[in-house]
Amino acid sequence: MLTGREIHPIAYPDGEVRTADFRVVEAPVLAPGPGEVLVRNTWTSVDAALRLRLRQAAPEGYFVAFPLGAPMDGILTVGEVVESRAEAFEVGDTVRHAFGWRDYAVVRAGEPALAGVGTLARVDLELAPAQAYLGLLGGSGLPAYVGLFEIAGLRAGDVVWVSAAAGSVGSLAAQLAKINGNRVIGSAGSDAKVAYLLDELGLDAAFNYRSGPLPELLREAAPDGIDVYFDNVGGDHLEAALGALRRWGRVAICGTISDYGAPAPAPGPSNIFLAVAKDLTIRGFRGSSHVDRMDEMTRRVAGWQREGRIRYRETVVEGLERAPEALAALIRGETTGKTVVRIA
Amino acid sequence: MLTGREIHPIAYPDGEVRTADFRVVEAPVLAPGPGEVLVRNTWTSVDAALRLRLRQAAPEGYFVAFPLGAPMDGILTVGEVVESRAEAFEVGDTVRHAFGWRDYAVVRAGEPALAGVGTLARVDLELAPAQAYLGLLGGSGLPAYVGLFEIAGLRAGDVVWVSAAAGSVGSLAAQLAKINGNRVIGSAGSDAKVAYLLDELGLDAAFNYRSGPLPELLREAAPDGIDVYFDNVGGDHLEAALGALRRWGRVAICGTISDYGAPAPAPGPSNIFLAVAKDLTIRGFRGSSHVDRMDEMTRRVAGWQREGRIRYRETVVEGLERAPEALAALIRGETTGKTVVRIA
Repeated sequence: MLTGREIHPIAYPDGEVRTADFRVVEAPVLAPGPGEVLVRNTWTSVDAALRLRLRQAAPEGYFVAFPLGAPMDGILTVGEVVESRAEAFEVGDTVRHAFGWRDYAVVRAGEPALAGVGTLARVDLELAPAQAYLGLLGGSGLPAYVGLFEIAGLRAGDVVWVSAAAGSVGSLAAQLAKINGNRVIGSAGSDAKVAYLLDELGLDAAFNYRSGPLPELLREAAPDGIDVYFDNVGGDHLEAALGALRRWGRVAICGTISDYGAPAPAPGPSNIFLAVAKDLTIRGFRGSSHVDRMDEMTRRVAGWQREGRIRYRETVVEGLERAPEALAALIRGETTGKTVVRIA
Repeated sequence: MLTGREIHPIAYPDGEVRTADFRVVEAPVLAPGPGEVLVRNTWTSVDAALRLRLRQAAPEGYFVAFPLGAPMDGILTVGEVVESRAEAFEVGDTVRHAFGWRDYAVVRAGEPALAGVGTLARVDLELAPAQAYLGLLGGSGLPAYVGLFEIAGLRAGDVVWVSAAAGSVGSLAAQLAKINGNRVIGSAGSDAKVAYLLDELGLDAAFNYRSGPLPELLREAAPDGIDVYFDNVGGDHLEAALGALRRWGRVAICGTISDYGAPAPAPGPSNIFLAVAKDLTIRGFRGSSHVDRMDEMTRRVAGWQREGRIRYRETVVEGLERAPEALAALIRGETTGKTVVRIA
């Protein structure tokens, strides 16, 4: 009988993510039932937002928490169909689905997963390699594209600040804004990442947020203020943005990584009144709430990449068993670009 | 020579507003020059937001701070033209302008004031009494109307929470939402005000925010959550709202009175991530940024009032010299509805 490895959380991290909070479990692989396919997973995603579900209760309204002692359902994954009992899928198809952090998954066709983003679907390998569908054309591309063009309502002439701009979503948001013709400032947590933002992504300005008081760093990078802030960090970054935004400015909050491991809720920005004074709009959003834009995003972003206008970096971690380690490194800010695990 | 009284701030309040921070000054009244009118002020406005300008520097992007030792420019006021050297105005006209907290004002016709809200304009006494143009049809009606229908994008079926709902803007926002057919919850800081919200304004539920933990009070009033929060308070109220808002919920931040006298910036909501989890939109706004809707608002709100569908309460303070006292009482939460000073 076929067996496969699964990664189970066995304890919720207390602060930092530790590999000891996970266990690799060898489990029998079930046969697909009618309407189901068996997928041999080849790549699985590692996302900061997983941290939000590694606790007793995930934030209200968010995806549910991962139960302990069970495989983690709801992580974007690609693989190859090795057995199919679903009409629309054939053995050999490369598919995207939501049953990650394991070698094999039985997936029901047509069953909505991850608010539609992870519903079983074939991916087009002529457009991009399989793992691109986890990030560039999936969990990173969608929030970057929707956050910038829809949530923040990016307009010509807007000065844009993107935080965590060397990250998977941030680096795309920053580049999409550049492609749109905007002036773009990026921030990140190391000088090497700042060099990447300037030299590789061609941003107009960039700074290491650990190198000084954030409001001053931002003022140097954007002396006349900003119009759009694409927020991946929250906390002091959001507060600095409210200070720097010009009238009618907009914030798209994609994530608040500064919060995710915090033992207690961190205080929010103390300058919310500036939203009144400057007629600001602050919108939180989930990429998955805009899955109707997935095809449009895929077509456009893949096109820009083919034209060489998008640099897309991956931190590839080899081996399923190293997924927890990869998540821990991601949360500590040690990865660049999209973090993916190559399973096989 | 004609003389008139002016109220000058002589020290910026340290925390609470005290009458000792102001002085009544007798000053000569200048004659109007070409294009100007001389107005004998009859009513002048008292607003929580004045507190924001009674300090060394007003919040960035906001109206400028009031200089010490000078009359306070930029407070909505009505009066009667007693001398005119401006073509469009005649002696006897009742006008609205922005030179309040004084007996007489020389006002230049056509000069924008208070972002357009306080630009010299005749008011229609057939529609409403003069002082209504300070609040109901002015500084209260405009933010209530715009905040609800434009900023919060009020829709049929939305459950609405209005804080400071016995206040000038809040009581209107709550009633406009009722007129629109929505379920409306109001909060205020005393049991007497809560009775007013229920018995006079006919709100669906109301609570005294001092009577228990805010999230629990809100949950009792809106067990299934809210869709719109009209914020006049900020701080813990905004935090409670983020907790109670349903998916795609919206916040219109009109003011954050909990901040205005604070010696140091108060921490913001610690649950901003819920904006991501629930796809929330938080918009700050200034009524004056939407002065283009003033005529529409005036027509509609005056119409609803004529039909008896709007209760509008004023705290009338008699005598210009008592304006500072009125402001102090307003900030302490002791007034109900719109606070105005009758000058003469």
